[in-house]
Amino acid sequence: MSAFDLPARAADSDLSEAVADARASVFGTAPLVQCLTNTVVTTITANVLLAAGAAPAMVDNAHEAAEFARVAAAVLINLGTPDDQRAEAMRAAAASATTAGTRWVLDPVAVGGLSFRTALARDLLDQRPTLIRGNASEVIALAGMGEGGRGVDTTVDPEAAEPAARALSSRTGGVVAVSGPTDVIVAGDRTLRLGGGSEMLTRTTGAGCALGALCAAYLGATADPLAGTLAAHLHVALAAEEAEIRTAGPGSFVVAWVDAISATGPDELAAGLLDRLA
Amino acid sequence: MSAFDLPARAADSDLSEAVADARASVFGTAPLVQCLTNTVVTTITANVLLAAGAAPAMVDNAHEAAEFARVAAAVLINLGTPDDQRAEAMRAAAASATTAGTRWVLDPVAVGGLSFRTALARDLLDQRPTLIRGNASEVIALAGMGEGGRGVDTTVDPEAAEPAARALSSRTGGVVAVSGPTDVIVAGDRTLRLGGGSEMLTRTTGAGCALGALCAAYLGATADPLAGTLAAHLHVALAAEEAEIRTAGPGSFVVAWVDAISATGPDELAAGLLDRLA
Amino acid sequence: MSAFDLPARAADSDLSEAVADARASVFGTAPLVQCLTNTVVTTITANVLLAAGAAPAMVDNAHEAAEFARVAAAVLINLGTPDDQRAEAMRAAAASATTAGTRWVLDPVAVGGLSFRTALARDLLDQRPTLIRGNASEVIALAGMGEGGRGVDTTVDPEAAEPAARALSSRTGGVVAVSGPTDVIVAGDRTLRLGGGSEMLTRTTGAGCALGALCAAYLGATADPLAGTLAAHLHVALAAEEAEIRTAGPGSFVVAWVDAISATGPDELAAGLLDRLA
Repeated sequence: MSAFDLPARAADSDLSEAVADARASVFGTAPLVQCLTNTVVTTITANVLLAAGAAPAMVDNAHEAAEFARVAAAVLINLGTPDDQRAEAMRAAAASATTAGTRWVLDPVAVGGLSFRTALARDLLDQRPTLIRGNASEVIALAGMGEGGRGVDTTVDPEAAEPAARALSSRTGGVVAVSGPTDVIVAGDRTLRLGGGSEMLTRTTGAGCALGALCAAYLGATADPLAGTLAAHLHVALAAEEAEIRTAGPGSFVVAWVDAISATGPDELAAGLLDRLA
Repeated sequence: MSAFDLPARAADSDLSEAVADARASVFGTAPLVQCLTNTVVTTITANVLLAAGAAPAMVDNAHEAAEFARVAAAVLINLGTPDDQRAEAMRAAAASATTAGTRWVLDPVAVGGLSFRTALARDLLDQRPTLIRGNASEVIALAGMGEGGRGVDTTVDPEAAEPAARALSSRTGGVVAVSGPTDVIVAGDRTLRLGGGSEMLTRTTGAGCALGALCAAYLGATADPLAGTLAAHLHVALAAEEAEIRTAGPGSFVVAWVDAISATGPDELAAGLLDRLA
Repeated sequence: MSAFDLPARAADSDLSEAVADARASVFGTAPLVQCLTNTVVTTITANVLLAAGAAPAMVDNAHEAAEFARVAAAVLINLGTPDDQRAEAMRAAAASATTAGTRWVLDPVAVGGLSFRTALARDLLDQRPTLIRGNASEVIALAGMGEGGRGVDTTVDPEAAEPAARALSSRTGGVVAVSGPTDVIVAGDRTLRLGGGSEMLTRTTGAGCALGALCAAYLGATADPLAGTLAAHLHVALAAEEAEIRTAGPGSFVVAWVDAISATGPDELAAGLLDRLA
C-alpha cells in the first residue's frame, strides 16, 4: 500500500492537474518555510521562495529552531555549512518538526566525503524527513551504498542512485528526489522521472539548494508529498528553460530565473509536465 | 521640547532642502557603517550601502564589535539570525556605540514571535538606539503592546503601530520608523508619513533590512536623526519606483533597484519628497 | 634564484602564452577551491568561481576544514568575518594545506585596524601562504609596517605597499598581490604591474574577495604561482572592462561582470595582457 495519494496509474490529465493545483496552493497559502541552510545560498533561497509566493524565515539558531518548527508550514534542513550551533539547531528543528507533524526536507549536501556532516545526516535521517533531495552521489552515500562525490559536484548519473533512493524511501516512508539532467523521484514503490531544465542551473550557486527549499514550500501547501515534490522540480525546470533563452551568461541567468520562478503559474505547470515526464 | 532639529512646522521647501542635504552628506562623507546583520541579507545590505556612497563594514564578531563601534560613523544591529556569538557581539556593539556617542539603528526582525530574540531586543532597547526601524508587528511587540507577526512578514497596518512607536520614542529619546505601504516615522511628539515606493520591495529579500542599514548611513552623515531617517526612506522609495518601471520580476527588480539607489541624488530627493509626504 | 618559473625577462609573447595557458587549465581541470571566507561575499565568490569554470566548496567549519584542505586543489582563507569557529577552521585549514602541499591564498581583510584578526593573520602567515592578496593598507599592516586603513576601504596607493609586499614575499617564499587601480604583484625579487579593470569593482561588494578566490583557482590549476596570480588579476580586469560598457549602475554591473567572467577565455587573456602591463 502506498502512503501517497498521487494515482499510481493516473491518466496524464490527472498528473497535470495535480501539479497545477500544487502551484496554485503555494500562491494561495504563502507557506511559511523555515530554512536552516548554508551561508552561501541564503539569499537566492529566500528570493526563490518569495518569487514563488512562499514566505521564507531563516530561523537557524539553536535557541529558536525547535520553537519555530512547530509553527512553520514546512522546514528545510540543508547541510552545506554545518557549524556547531547550526548543527545543534538542525537536530532540534528536525525533532520538533517530526513531533509536531511539520513536513521537512533534508538536503544532504556533500554527505559521504566528509565524516562530520555524514554522521549528522544519518542522525537526521532517524527523524524521517518527508523528502530527501540531493544529487546522486549524496543519495548513494546517505544510504550507505558508496562514498559520495567531491563537494556539491555531481558526476554520478541519477539512475545509478535509484536503488539507494528506494532504500531511503523505504526507511523514512517519505519521498527521495535525485537531481540531475533527468530527476529521479522515488516514493515507496513508485518512481517518476522528469527531464527538462537547463544546464545553466549547475553554473550558478544555490540552484539545487533553492530547489530543496521550494520543495519544502510545496510540501507545506500540498496534500500529497509526491505531487508537491514533482511540482517543485517542474517549476524550477520550466523557469530555467525560460531564463536560459533570455540570458548571456550565468550572472544574467540567475536574475532571469528568479523572474521566471515568479511568472510560472499553474497553467504553465499543467502544460509543461507531459513533455518532460520520462 | 523636541530633541530634533527638523522644524516642527517647516515650510515644504525646508523639508525638501533637509533631505537633499542629507543625501549630499552621504555622498560627500562616505560614512563607515558597521553592520551586525543577518546572514540572508549581508550582500544586498553591503551593495545598497555602496550604491548610496557609504562604506559598509560587517564587523560582527564578539572580539571586534565593540572596538569597531567606537570608530564607525554609525552601527546597524539587525536581529534576523542571532546566533550566540553574534548576539554577544550585538550587546557589545550597542553598549560601545552608546558610550562613544556613535549613532545606531535597531532592526528588531521577527521580535515578538520568538522569545530568545525578543529578550535580546529588549536588552538592546536599554542602550537607547538612535533609530528603531521595523514593520508594524515588530514595533508593537518591541513596545510590549502585542505578540508580533510571523517572521519578517507584516500583516499589520503601520498606523496601528503609531502608539507603540510613540511609546518607544519616548523611552529611547530617538526616532522610530514603521515600514509599510505608508511609512510612519515618529520622533518625540512628531509624526511624519511617507508614501510611494513599490510593492516589489516585499518580493525580494532584504529590502527592509537594507533600508535599516541605509538609515544608519544617513544617521552617520546628517545632524538631525529625523531628517536622516526621512531621507533614507525616501531614497529607497524613489529608487524602487524607478526600478519597478524597468523590471520583469523580482530578480531584475533588485538589480535595477541597486542601480537606482546609486543614481538617486539630492535633486531627486528634493523633487520627490512633497508628493509622497502624507 | 627565483622560485618562480615565469621567465624573468620573458618576451611579451611568452607572458601572453602563460596567462592563456593558465586560463585554459582552469577551464580544463575545474579546480576544487575550498573557501573559508566572509559571510558577505560567499555568493558572489561561488558564482565567480563557477563562471570561470572552477568548483567552489565552502567547507569552513572546524570539524571538516583540515580534512577537506588535503583534497582540495587550492584553499582560500579570507578574514572578513572571523568568528571563533571560523577562525579555528582557518588555522586548521592553513596547517593542513601547508602539510599536504595544497596551495592557499590569504586575504587579510581589514587587518591592521582590528587586533583580533591582525593576530590571526600573523599566525596564518607562519603557515606561509602561496599568495597574499589584499589592498595596500592591509599588506602594509600585515608586514608590520603600518596601521592599516578603515575596514575594507583602501585609500593607500599600491605602490606604497611594494616594500611591504617584498618583505612578505621574502618571508613566505610566495607571491604577494596588492590590488588597486594598478595592481602590484611581487614574487621574490620580481614585480609585475597590471592596469586596466574598472572603478565599478569598488562599488559592489566582494569583487576583491572573489578575486582572491579566483587566484586560488588559478593556483590550483597552474604550475607557476606568479603566472597564475597574474592571469587571475587580468581575468577579473578584462571582465570588468567588458561589463562596465554594458551596465547602468552597480547592480547591473555585477550581473554583467559574472557573465563576462564566464565569457573571457584564453584568447582574450592572451590578447589583453600587453596593453595592461605597466
